Amino acid sequence: MTNIKSIFELQEFIDEAIDQLVLPLEPKELYEPIAYILNLGGKRLRPLMLLMVADMYGIPIKKILPQAIGIELFHNFTLIHDDIMDQAPIRRGMVTVHEKWSTNTAILSGDALYVKAYEFLLKADPQHLQPLIHLFNQTATEVCEGQQLDMNFESIEVVSMDEYIHMVKHKTAVLLACSLNIGALCADAPNEDQENLYQFGIFIGIAFQFMDDILDVYGDQKNFGKQLAGDILCNKKTCLYIRAYERADSSQKKILDHYFAHQDFESQEKISNVLNVYNSLKVRESCEEIMQEYYATAMNHLDFVKLPNDRKSSLIKFIDVLMVRLN
Amino acid sequence: MTNIKSIFELQEFIDEAIDQLVLPLEPKELYEPIAYILNLGGKRLRPLMLLMVADMYGIPIKKILPQAIGIELFHNFTLIHDDIMDQAPIRRGMVTVHEKWSTNTAILSGDALYVKAYEFLLKADPQHLQPLIHLFNQTATEVCEGQQLDMNFESIEVVSMDEYIHMVKHKTAVLLACSLNIGALCADAPNEDQENLYQFGIFIGIAFQFMDDILDVYGDQKNFGKQLAGDILCNKKTCLYIRAYERADSSQKKILDHYFAHQDFESQEKISNVLNVYNSLKVRESCEEIMQEYYATAMNHLDFVKLPNDRKSSLIKFIDVLMVRLN
Repeated sequence: MTNIKSIFELQEFIDEAIDQLVLPLEPKELYEPIAYILNLGGKRLRPLMLLMVADMYGIPIKKILPQAIGIELFHNFTLIHDDIMDQAPIRRGMVTVHEKWSTNTAILSGDALYVKAYEFLLKADPQHLQPLIHLFNQTATEVCEGQQLDMNFESIEVVSMDEYIHMVKHKTAVLLACSLNIGALCADAPNEDQENLYQFGIFIGIAFQFMDDILDVYGDQKNFGKQLAGDILCNKKTCLYIRAYERADSSQKKILDHYFAHQDFESQEKISNVLNVYNSLKVRESCEEIMQEYYATAMNHLDFVKLPNDRKSSLIKFIDVLMVRLN
Repeated sequence: MTNIKSIFELQEFIDEAIDQLVLPLEPKELYEPIAYILNLGGKRLRPLMLLMVADMYGIPIKKILPQAIGIELFHNFTLIHDDIMDQAPIRRGMVTVHEKWSTNTAILSGDALYVKAYEFLLKADPQHLQPLIHLFNQTATEVCEGQQLDMNFESIEVVSMDEYIHMVKHKTAVLLACSLNIGALCADAPNEDQENLYQFGIFIGIAFQFMDDILDVYGDQKNFGKQLAGDILCNKKTCLYIRAYERADSSQKKILDHYFAHQDFESQEKISNVLNVYNSLKVRESCEEIMQEYYATAMNHLDFVKLPNDRKSSLIKFIDVLMVRLN
């Protein structure tokens, strides 16, 4: 088997493939937004982890690259449509598609990108097509369900931690799990390995979301690159908020209700008052504990994958780099 | 080979399969709109013609039914999203999804329906999967392009007849052609037959659109079931309008420009003044001529399909029933 490739090498494969993606020139209203969102970059976490798994099993990257690109295209399709639904003005530091063009353009170029995603995903060997189709359709359905649950949370007064984790699992973790599973599936990995890699993806995906929620409030702004406490400012029901609301007494609930009722407060006043509640209820510690549990379960599943440790070490190191941002 | 099934029998298969479609109960915001649009009915023209072709080649209907349902699901997905983009309040006599629920609900339930379409379409024998995927992705992309071109027409002052036909081909004819082709493909029909059935679908699809445009203005309201001249009232650039604008002198252009500038005119005044221009320029006759040409070319392609005439007669009769509405 060839040596494990570095993250850098794998990223090169992905970037090059996306750069070389040939989109029709006309109708330009349909294809310019697709080129635009793909050029915004992003971490490309899903295709990267798909390639890492395939590489663990020693199959040539070129052979599996279309599936990795298909996953990234699907992810970008969900971003275009989610940004419309969430009325998000900014994505990766740039104006969102529906803001730059229009809602209609964002709907339709999203749809066209979705077709492209299937086109790439299904460039697989005939013997892999049926399980691949089944896995991906299941995942895509769950991603839609996750987005719907997330939208529902806006109008539900009290969201439980279980409901939150269920939503996160659907909205984000299943696509990561699906990516890892596809890498193993196309490498003809044993079913048990595929299942363990899928579960690894589910648990690590949920851990990542908890980490993002925590970093949004407690992260170092310079390293994290986002406006600190953006989730508080836009009234997002993150794990921190949910845990706080569970633990709050009636006066603390009043503070949360007050500041999460609308977005017209002075930023610093809102952040510091909400943060006071969070801190006094030790929600950071509680959420970090949940995150660590999910992380540990994820690593357990990875442990069960029947490959020598030196094949898995690159993926483990990569996960550690991603998780370490908290400390 | 078994006897050719009647239209009625084939419709029963489709209606039953759609009735039996099991959708999850939750999240209900996602699945209720899907059940709603599927229950609105419609002509089910595409799945019906797909089944007719498969039946021509004598393959069991049950075997090909998932692909027929997949096409109908895809068609309904495009209706949900198109209705948002066109701000259409009514579909098949009922409130549209985005009006009944919200734009967000219509975007996301449309996306979920799209996944379901793939799920059904790809329930095919392994040996048919790759050509099926290729054909369908190509078609879905062209349908998006067609919708974009149609939207662009709203802001383009002069649309040529060639541009109109190009748009219609993409927006509607390719899906009909794809349906017919899938029926033949899954029946292992010779490639040449598949190609002729595809071309038959393209030409008959364009002829159908011309007929719809003509019937909207000149049809018998009772039989046609739609408000007469709805296309004129909402300033749609149909083949009649395009031909009229090509032939109009400067005073007739002024009348068209005047009445197509907005929708606030008194209905009967608008219709009768626009109709006067149409009639004096004989646009109905011209558009019927084009329609007949496309119809004749379509039937020519059907002629080339290497099957005994008694296998084709049901499809031919069905087309004749659809086309006869004009006379």
